[in-house]
Amino acid sequence: MKKILITNDDGIYSRGIKLLAKTLKQIGKVTVAAPLTEQSAVGHSITMKYPLRISEVYENGEFFGYAIDGTPADCVKMGIRNIMKEKPDLVVSGINHGSNVAINIIYSGTVSAAREAAIMDAQAIAISLANHKPVHLETAAKAALIVSKFVLENPLPNGVILNVNVPDIAIEHVKGFLFTKQGLSKWDDYYEERMDPYGNNYYWLKGEMLNLDDKINADIIAVKNNFISITPIHFDLTEYSLLEKLQDKKLDFN
Amino acid sequence: MKKILITNDDGIYSRGIKLLAKTLKQIGKVTVAAPLTEQSAVGHSITMKYPLRISEVYENGEFFGYAIDGTPADCVKMGIRNIMKEKPDLVVSGINHGSNVAINIIYSGTVSAAREAAIMDAQAIAISLANHKPVHLETAAKAALIVSKFVLENPLPNGVILNVNVPDIAIEHVKGFLFTKQGLSKWDDYYEERMDPYGNNYYWLKGEMLNLDDKINADIIAVKNNFISITPIHFDLTEYSLLEKLQDKKLDFN
Repeated sequence: MKKILITNDDGIYSRGIKLLAKTLKQIGKVTVAAPLTEQSAVGHSITMKYPLRISEVYENGEFFGYAIDGTPADCVKMGIRNIMKEKPDLVVSGINHGSNVAINIIYSGTVSAAREAAIMDAQAIAISLANHKPVHLETAAKAALIVSKFVLENPLPNGVILNVNVPDIAIEHVKGFLFTKQGLSKWDDYYEERMDPYGNNYYWLKGEMLNLDDKINADIIAVKNNFISITPIHFDLTEYSLLEKLQDKKLDFN
Repeated sequence: MKKILITNDDGIYSRGIKLLAKTLKQIGKVTVAAPLTEQSAVGHSITMKYPLRISEVYENGEFFGYAIDGTPADCVKMGIRNIMKEKPDLVVSGINHGSNVAINIIYSGTVSAAREAAIMDAQAIAISLANHKPVHLETAAKAALIVSKFVLENPLPNGVILNVNVPDIAIEHVKGFLFTKQGLSKWDDYYEERMDPYGNNYYWLKGEMLNLDDKINADIIAVKNNFISITPIHFDLTEYSLLEKLQDKKLDFN
């Protein structure tokens, strides 16, 4: 039986992870190790300055999984090293409430959890539903099941994960699966200034996504057009084309 | 006069950022916007659930810079949007106490700050000294000055930053500058279990770097061999070679 580790960044009590765990029990033995509290936009943060604690979480009187008071990447590390104590056949992170496309991949705790699994040489998928207040979680769960089977049958190269984004619509309205690239779209954001009751300023991050993509082969456009987007992503950040050009340049201390 | 924004992840009171600010005043007008407290290993975390606050920090009775109670990426966003209110000619993140090479690039707040600048279409450099208790900060400061001049004279393509790592040795022992790629080395880590005075377990992350590189063209090896390593890095995480192969695959709901 396939061993599957499930985590997320919305926290162990979110609706998305509960449905994901229930769904993937169809194809494997599921272990849940997820953050105790919501960890959205923590990126690939790991906890080193403080120790972590693990607690057991029950759902309707039955054991559901392990809550860890850290980040999604912490949960994957600890889930594999200290809880499962062996490498799972697959790590699935999600179902995130909200898409993780274009520049948001960089900020995403959901994606970073899957990436941490890939760093540990495990197969991994991140799955997100494109609505912060999701309606059709069942569409994402079904997509997670299909992509999980696909990865178990067609293992990814070491260091690569699949980032899956699902439109928040009923299954019958989905146009299909598309393999895509990370879109170029990014935030036009700023901090809104407010004053607290004691006369001190504080600042809220606000912004709008600048749509810089137009082709269906970009993750953000695929999802907008009711496709399930699947993007293979990696963690070698080297910009090789520039590296080659830089080799001619000489720098020195004089 | 060139406008330079300086930030870091060790916090605004660290020795590294003070020396960096002092050094770069030689070539431009410096604005410091840095985390109020140490933010190591926060990765590309941004703060959305809480508002941020800004405070002014003085050094020997003179204004030094703005402390923000957020992450390095927050400081770059806020530094550009709300403090400078214009795009700087250069953003420099550092001097980090400890190297940011190989897989550590993923976890690094220092590198993520520079990357946030690149997302905002600014030129950016991350600079780290390969020792958590640095001795030769002056070597990193000199390297920062040289690489800053280089970038101001040879602008990077949009979306690319230079990740600079400096060996903690005197300038006269440095063998030179090398353009490198992100190394493959990564952590072999686990959580050490301890018990608190009340009988509850807690867990500390511990580990050793597994050296998976051997060539001088990898950042980690260049620094070990007393070179200053300069790696161009980007934020398009798409794994294009796999994407091409996946186009043949068909997934569907049936």
